[in-house]
Amino acid sequence: MHDKELEEGTALLPRFDANGLISAIVADENTGEVLMLAHMNEEALRRTIATREGWFWSRSRKAMWKKGETSGNVLQVSAMKIDCDQDAVLLSVRVSGDGKTCHTGRRTCFYRSISLGEGKTTLRFDE
Amino acid sequence: MHDKELEEGTALLPRFDANGLISAIVADENTGEVLMLAHMNEEALRRTIATREGWFWSRSRKAMWKKGETSGNVLQVSAMKIDCDQDAVLLSVRVSGDGKTCHTGRRTCFYRSISLGEGKTTLRFDE
Repeated sequence: MHDKELEEGTALLPRFDANGLISAIVADENTGEVLMLAHMNEEALRRTIATREGWFWSRSRKAMWKKGETSGNVLQVSAMKIDCDQDAVLLSVRVSGDGKTCHTGRRTCFYRSISLGEGKTTLRFDE
Repeated sequence: MHDKELEEGTALLPRFDANGLISAIVADENTGEVLMLAHMNEEALRRTIATREGWFWSRSRKAMWKKGETSGNVLQVSAMKIDCDQDAVLLSVRVSGDGKTCHTGRRTCFYRSISLGEGKTTLRFDE
């Protein structure tokens, strides 16, 4: 496939990796805050586009899952973008239920900061 | 490894996949806009933390690369977070040079929206 078609075309031509997956970044539709990162196979991508709810492929469980099916925190997808080489998507969502995306009970999965610079690397919990 | 240590600890314990990689989301430090998604192996992660500049592993070229080494658009990392299960990081950056992250000359790699709902799926270029 020519790069031009992939990068400058209007056709959805997702480039799944060797495991049949693309990366899916989930962000809050209002604040843009990144909430989680997951993966989609072709069927999860199709279902998400068709239903406007977030479906993913679990690499650990090797199964499809609809986010919020048990927790109630369904991802209502208001917009979805794809990147230049079509191997990653970005979902803008409203989180149903209590609005918490992470299974640990936090709003976002990215709740710890990595110390930067030389020296010992540690994690610090965000406010 | 216990989930508790992974999710509630202060030790960096990155869980690299079968290819030795974790996902790295890059966002603008001021606006939070997602600019690109790439991958890091252990060495790219180490260099990024130590130097505060964005290093990645190219899956297509099978090589380390420092973002901006040729374009000048180096990613100055001001903060870095890791997710609950430690297989994805989120970099807050200031982009050096002309501030354009995407190799197509755009500010972000996510410049096309996917049409949602049933029916034919197409891409639309953002403003």
